[in-house]
Amino acid sequence: MAYEEVIHLIDRHQYIGIITHIMPDGDTLGSALALGAALKGMGKRVSVFNQDGVPAKYKFLVENGDIGVYTKHQDCTLVITVDCSDIDRLGDSFTQLFKNAQDTVNIDHHKSNNMYADINIVETDCGATGEIVYKLIKQLPVGINKYMAECLYVALSTDTGSFSYSNTTSQTFAIASNLAKHEINIGRISRELFYKRSLDKTKLIGIAIDNITLYFENRVAIVYIENASIAHLSVDEEDFDGLINYAREIEGVEVAVLIRNKGDSIKIGLRSNTYVDVSAIAQKFGGGGHERAAGCIVEGTDVKGTIKPLLAEIAAHLD
Amino acid sequence: MAYEEVIHLIDRHQYIGIITHIMPDGDTLGSALALGAALKGMGKRVSVFNQDGVPAKYKFLVENGDIGVYTKHQDCTLVITVDCSDIDRLGDSFTQLFKNAQDTVNIDHHKSNNMYADINIVETDCGATGEIVYKLIKQLPVGINKYMAECLYVALSTDTGSFSYSNTTSQTFAIASNLAKHEINIGRISRELFYKRSLDKTKLIGIAIDNITLYFENRVAIVYIENASIAHLSVDEEDFDGLINYAREIEGVEVAVLIRNKGDSIKIGLRSNTYVDVSAIAQKFGGGGHERAAGCIVEGTDVKGTIKPLLAEIAAHLD
Repeated sequence: MAYEEVIHLIDRHQYIGIITHIMPDGDTLGSALALGAALKGMGKRVSVFNQDGVPAKYKFLVENGDIGVYTKHQDCTLVITVDCSDIDRLGDSFTQLFKNAQDTVNIDHHKSNNMYADINIVETDCGATGEIVYKLIKQLPVGINKYMAECLYVALSTDTGSFSYSNTTSQTFAIASNLAKHEINIGRISRELFYKRSLDKTKLIGIAIDNITLYFENRVAIVYIENASIAHLSVDEEDFDGLINYAREIEGVEVAVLIRNKGDSIKIGLRSNTYVDVSAIAQKFGGGGHERAAGCIVEGTDVKGTIKPLLAEIAAHLD
Repeated sequence: MAYEEVIHLIDRHQYIGIITHIMPDGDTLGSALALGAALKGMGKRVSVFNQDGVPAKYKFLVENGDIGVYTKHQDCTLVITVDCSDIDRLGDSFTQLFKNAQDTVNIDHHKSNNMYADINIVETDCGATGEIVYKLIKQLPVGINKYMAECLYVALSTDTGSFSYSNTTSQTFAIASNLAKHEINIGRISRELFYKRSLDKTKLIGIAIDNITLYFENRVAIVYIENASIAHLSVDEEDFDGLINYAREIEGVEVAVLIRNKGDSIKIGLRSNTYVDVSAIAQKFGGGGHERAAGCIVEGTDVKGTIKPLLAEIAAHLD
């Protein structure tokens, strides 16, 4: 029903903008680029927007196609957002573009989506927004081509941890099976997404591991990274992604914590494996998040100094 | 055709042994346990054999089912080997069991398979032997149940690197899609297979990363691990699996090398990313392997001493 309404809108408009979320990932970019290519194939003038631009990791997707990703406005009468749970996720630059559009569509899979558009296709049982975009493109007069298949494959595999997380369903695999028929290079795409890192990011992993300490009969793993210990490395904010997993994945660990300097503050990430509600712990320090993944930013620069109060709070949540 | 012959053999025999390969992985074990459960469902007396026993990582598979894995012989008149490219892969203990059987079947996906059984189902375009076993079970009078689906999922996901390697095909995904319909817990299985490691294995990764050195404009990455540096850790041979990837996955690296003490010798692993034939390099040091993955064992204990001659040989293979 909603699909038909979206297709009807696409038919009516000639200038279409697709907005992806800030700090973009493979799902938002892959979904937008696949949909953009399909719409372009229908003769539409299409622009994909992202406030922050395309991270190095996903540049190959843009290079392989002829759809640009713009950080600045272009006129469009229909705006489609992909993988954005809330209008804030569009970024300041594109909220106005969204509001000015004649018609708006919101395609997403987040449970927290608040249905902010004229038409909303929000399917929370999908592992990736790419699954919804796949189903939409299948109903458009153009078919899926190799480039779209590649983009959607990136969308699916990034959001499901290469089909390993619990959000991976029979539908996810069925769609991947169809995408794979287009002779996409799965090995090469996976290398770009999962098996490639800079020397300095690699060294950062080594430093993080060297600084893991276990507490409470190995149920809590704390990693701290002081600015001084990584001053010789050239690392971006995104290089810290996933570091906490080296602590969380240690056998017996329930709560993992990553503490590091960030500017003049201290950034603390928290993860749990099965039962501790780490969002409650983060809240005590002015942060928030979800049961299994939360975080907070505290004042100061003394990374090690935060360990004791954190441990005291975590202890109260252990079985 | 071969499938029908195998089904005919299964019908004729009551005592069936399934042999998995030495140093078993998820594909051989998952394939054997799924097939074993299916045959047991048909009223057969089934034994799964492995010379080395089940590694800790895969114990959950045996615990979840009622098929044991035996390291000692039991009588059987039909023997089926799974994921074994050569009769040597059965291990000394089970070569004789295979030879003594009235009838033998060889189910495998390795290109190097030398068709050593009476009936051979060798499909080299399958990412995992589990795909072939899935197709076989589908033709048996019992259906796939949740346990078999779990076992086959392990087979598929281990051999394809969670559906990320280039051996992953449309068929692999289509089968995974069917397996996922049995409400298997993909998140939990993936944690057991990919996201769980001991503290000491984690520390071993840190030590390996600390010992990465790049040569030839970062095209060669060498990691060495001396016994003295890991004497405080409790690590198994399998804990070294995958360590070399931290070197291989560094941007710009073509050849990665892991050098370490093993007993009174030095074990050298070699990997390349796109063009260097590392098996040729390994051969110079008395080893062998494939173009992208090879290895050798050299005499002595001086790990660092091997770097210079290795680099000289590698240099001759770089563009």
